[in-house]
Amino acid sequence: MRIDIITVLPDLFGSFFDESIIGRAQKKGLVEIHVHNLRDYTKDKHKRVDDYPFGGGSGMIMQIQPIADCIAFLKEKLMTEKGEEYDEIIYTSPDGGLFSQPVANELSQKKNIIILCGHYKGIDQRVRDKLITRELSVGDYVLTGGELPAAVMTDAIVRVIPGAIGDSQAALDDCFQDGLLAPPIYTRPANYEGFGSVPEILLCGDPKKIREWEIQQAIERTRSLRPNLLDEK
Amino acid sequence: MRIDIITVLPDLFGSFFDESIIGRAQKKGLVEIHVHNLRDYTKDKHKRVDDYPFGGGSGMIMQIQPIADCIAFLKEKLMTEKGEEYDEIIYTSPDGGLFSQPVANELSQKKNIIILCGHYKGIDQRVRDKLITRELSVGDYVLTGGELPAAVMTDAIVRVIPGAIGDSQAALDDCFQDGLLAPPIYTRPANYEGFGSVPEILLCGDPKKIREWEIQQAIERTRSLRPNLLDEK
Repeated sequence: MRIDIITVLPDLFGSFFDESIIGRAQKKGLVEIHVHNLRDYTKDKHKRVDDYPFGGGSGMIMQIQPIADCIAFLKEKLMTEKGEEYDEIIYTSPDGGLFSQPVANELSQKKNIIILCGHYKGIDQRVRDKLITRELSVGDYVLTGGELPAAVMTDAIVRVIPGAIGDSQAALDDCFQDGLLAPPIYTRPANYEGFGSVPEILLCGDPKKIREWEIQQAIERTRSLRPNLLDEK
Repeated sequence: MRIDIITVLPDLFGSFFDESIIGRAQKKGLVEIHVHNLRDYTKDKHKRVDDYPFGGGSGMIMQIQPIADCIAFLKEKLMTEKGEEYDEIIYTSPDGGLFSQPVANELSQKKNIIILCGHYKGIDQRVRDKLITRELSVGDYVLTGGELPAAVMTDAIVRVIPGAIGDSQAALDDCFQDGLLAPPIYTRPANYEGFGSVPEILLCGDPKKIREWEIQQAIERTRSLRPNLLDEK
């Protein structure tokens, strides 16, 4: 899989994609992540990529030209080198569809995607109308830019690519994959001063009993904390 | 405001908090962000902070000792140096309450918060029971760790601290602050080949008419894309 990220702050991504599971997935050749500096594509002599909004109001708006040229360049390169097209050109926006685990699973099966990070007040609407195939929001809150959302989506997508997580069962056991929150988990020591003991059932040595308890705990916890997850089933 | 982040991957945060609005807010003295390496607090001679789950199953679980000792150290330091207590000790978890703009606004008014980043399969339940005052999720998807959610929360919280954004009106104009998505936005040029023209109303020069159009567009867009935001009002 190949993920191209277009941003005005390329340095933000360095440490995220080098570390942890994303870094390992890249080394294993499971995913290629390329971060592109939008300023490299502007025709403005001062390297600006934004301008004032039509109709007044506060904030700056990202212009069509650098984005259009950057995406055209990436499309042509992918076609020339591999004969492939981008499956999705995603724009991170708080008014996009909500990014969720099913969306991450779906996107992890694509071959080539672009993620365009919004910044400042956002991008010219005409880019959204003409170039963007999908708008996604990671949650109902406003961030200083689309860079963190792009990192969040990349992380969620890459970790479900088969082979990305060493212990592949760990990904399958995750909450959301079966529509339930995870049961409570405990590790050594069995008793820690001031923190009490683990539930006795976990020490009983009977895997079937333990699994039953875990499922029952998962259902109870989902019902109490996130009943909407049960409604959706 | 002071935000302490506890993590097993402290290097992930470097580039995020140095750049952009978060970096500027720190330079202006509006917020202090301190990232703590959990491994500095383990008593294990191999610097491990995790162990196998009781009752079997895949994945590793973060142990009580390093977390308890790190939080105790931070609490004592804050009390000794400033005579203050932490307002919240937050754990980033996919089964926590959903982080949203109202939560960001609320947390931006706190003085001292800790964000504990979950990693591996999660933390020992007894830490959640005894130390954590609030569990928050940035969305219904699973990430490789709580580091990105901690960065997301920090970003959303810091940008609504008065003075953090140069153009403070820009923060107020954001979608979500008034429960509506933003209207479409446009910048120069008014006509771009292949992308069409801006709506004529934005060029009419009558601020009242433009504002009316923007509100109507915001309502229409909210109704079509995110009707649940209107239900909640």
